[in-house]
Amino acid sequence: MIIKTPTHYFLVFGASEGFTPLNAFDGALLSAGIGDTNLVKMSSIVPPRCQQISPVPLPAGSLVPTAYASITSDVPGELISSAVAVALPKEPHYPGLIMEYSARGSRAEIEETVRRMALEGMRLRMREIKDLQSIAVEHKVQKVGATLAAVVLWDREDVG
Amino acid sequence: MIIKTPTHYFLVFGASEGFTPLNAFDGALLSAGIGDTNLVKMSSIVPPRCQQISPVPLPAGSLVPTAYASITSDVPGELISSAVAVALPKEPHYPGLIMEYSARGSRAEIEETVRRMALEGMRLRMREIKDLQSIAVEHKVQKVGATLAAVVLWDREDVG
Amino acid sequence: MIIKTPTHYFLVFGASEGFTPLNAFDGALLSAGIGDTNLVKMSSIVPPRCQQISPVPLPAGSLVPTAYASITSDVPGELISSAVAVALPKEPHYPGLIMEYSARGSRAEIEETVRRMALEGMRLRMREIKDLQSIAVEHKVQKVGATLAAVVLWDREDVG
Repeated sequence: MIIKTPTHYFLVFGASEGFTPLNAFDGALLSAGIGDTNLVKMSSIVPPRCQQISPVPLPAGSLVPTAYASITSDVPGELISSAVAVALPKEPHYPGLIMEYSARGSRAEIEETVRRMALEGMRLRMREIKDLQSIAVEHKVQKVGATLAAVVLWDREDVG
Repeated sequence: MIIKTPTHYFLVFGASEGFTPLNAFDGALLSAGIGDTNLVKMSSIVPPRCQQISPVPLPAGSLVPTAYASITSDVPGELISSAVAVALPKEPHYPGLIMEYSARGSRAEIEETVRRMALEGMRLRMREIKDLQSIAVEHKVQKVGATLAAVVLWDREDVG
Repeated sequence: MIIKTPTHYFLVFGASEGFTPLNAFDGALLSAGIGDTNLVKMSSIVPPRCQQISPVPLPAGSLVPTAYASITSDVPGELISSAVAVALPKEPHYPGLIMEYSARGSRAEIEETVRRMALEGMRLRMREIKDLQSIAVEHKVQKVGATLAAVVLWDREDVG
């Protein structure tokens, strides 16, 4: 079956320098604890009743559906940030919404924007919000830098 | 099993304004009826004997393999369009081809281009065409706008 | 189950001209032998004990997790290249690392870069390398050209 609905999720972030933009991104994934998995990027819903958990080690090389924001820069001194927000509905049978945002700027700015994005998305769905979570990370570029913030979706049977 | 072959597909389109480009994209997904799913972008084949259906509601938060074109713009007054085309072969044991195209311009222009792209792709495969389907949408940007056209792939067991 | 760990992999590359950038990309996929599948792009790990095989025909329209580099150009005369590298660890219970790189430039340059990227990634993981594989392809653009290099992940049960 190609279509499955994840049952758990967790939030992680990371930042890194690297030899190339992709190496910096790889380093950011490693610092987030998800560097040895195969992330499959997806747009950005928390299924109904999907449970938040603390980050767990994922099997090396497994395919992991993930909503993430990432940015790389090779401008020394530049401040880059990534953030994700998760808006959960009051009605537990509705899905929640994930928003991602990366840009030049401080962690505080980028996180504020992504939180407002999630609020806007729930307003558009006319869903009342029970909880608004977010994480964000900033990094000052030395040579080539990357930041990453991610919501990792996971499946019950694989959580110990 | 990680690799599965979809059995059904349907075409949708949408357009929206939004607070940010991602919010506009999210609004376009909602107006297309697929805003509460986790789209996984893929390159762009209709499996042999895959059946077209009318759009069906997808489970909230499910992972949905989708071929799509999308464009966002923050230039007020700009006309943006997205289109997808599906070329189906005469020989039913061959796969069909999906092409996606987004650009500034009118719906008619962009749809004509995507249809020609699908014809070219089938010509390259030396496959005769039984049917050429397409959908397209245009949007005149007010502040931040997005358009989306998509071919959603789906699995038999999940279609009622 | 949404998360699965691939058991086999193979390397392919291709290049093509095309009517549009997407048609050129499609042609590059065809010349690589994976043009009739639905590639799902992922970040870039070889699971522990995943076995390299010769390229096999994949079921038409199947969903195929793939790490790839691709570039398109519409500048006549420009030389574009794509490369992937796979670094495998000495310890068989650790995962390997895939790196992808595309740019203007010759095959030799781009392949050298991607190999160094993979070495850096393994160094960052403090893993000794048993083997470093790579493939690369270059293409001189006539009108609209594309190159592609890919590591295709696959599942044991589907290999004859």
